[in-house]
Amino acid sequence: MNDLNGYDIEDLSPGMSATFGKTVTESDIGLFAGISGDINALHLNEEYAATTPFGGRIAHGILTTGLISATIANKLPGPGVIYLEQQLRFLAPVRPGDTVNATVTVKEVIAERGHVVLETICRVGGKDVISGEARVKVGSSKKREEKKKLAAAGV
Amino acid sequence: MNDLNGYDIEDLSPGMSATFGKTVTESDIGLFAGISGDINALHLNEEYAATTPFGGRIAHGILTTGLISATIANKLPGPGVIYLEQQLRFLAPVRPGDTVNATVTVKEVIAERGHVVLETICRVGGKDVISGEARVKVGSSKKREEKKKLAAAGV
Repeated sequence: MNDLNGYDIEDLSPGMSATFGKTVTESDIGLFAGISGDINALHLNEEYAATTPFGGRIAHGILTTGLISATIANKLPGPGVIYLEQQLRFLAPVRPGDTVNATVTVKEVIAERGHVVLETICRVGGKDVISGEARVKVGSSKKREEKKKLAAAGV
Repeated sequence: MNDLNGYDIEDLSPGMSATFGKTVTESDIGLFAGISGDINALHLNEEYAATTPFGGRIAHGILTTGLISATIANKLPGPGVIYLEQQLRFLAPVRPGDTVNATVTVKEVIAERGHVVLETICRVGGKDVISGEARVKVGSSKKREEKKKLAAAGV
């Protein structure tokens, strides 16, 4: 672990998993529209959204993706991580009031580059709403120790 | 165009492009942390962020991605679009106060499925900060007219 209690590359192995759950609220959707500028009627206009196959307003897909970012940044690998890539497939709608569980699972550890490939899934009531994969970069306890030794030796 | 002034599949061809620009503010970053639950110190803690290679706080990558969602939903293909997939590569940091221009360009039109593949790029001062690709679904003016004819014929 690093000083911020995040995982180093040496700590990670395939199968490790973490989940963060959050209820997506009306407020989240309104604020995200302002932050992003995405004023899609499907998210903001109940009268319009009710006429679509969704039958009512749904959350922005990228808003829900924020919970994947949260799981990666807060839990696995956690603090110190750098986000490199994210692939997303939007499978089903998230509605105001839905509780989303974002789960990330280590698929591959590329030790020499400090890269980790994670499976990233968001679920509502056990149903997948977003699937995908992330690539992140983490630190190395081994490299930090080597630097310390060199510093102590005055190199 | 559909009733909401969004493009139908028949209106789209490779090379069509649209851009949406927005300044990413301190307020956006704070609100996005609350919406997503992503409290990465790199986004919220200036004293910590100053010690990293970034040299200060940066915006959440998924926050900036929201501007891609906005360009797709508001401009190209615009209202009525359904987001299917998004690939993202985070190339460089976005700092509070940076103005991000998100540009989407039609790469491929898959008429029989109503799918459109878009190149999606976010830039700050001409420099790419996010690159990637989206797949979206749009409506068909041809199919709507066929439905109307069938309805008029009482089928």
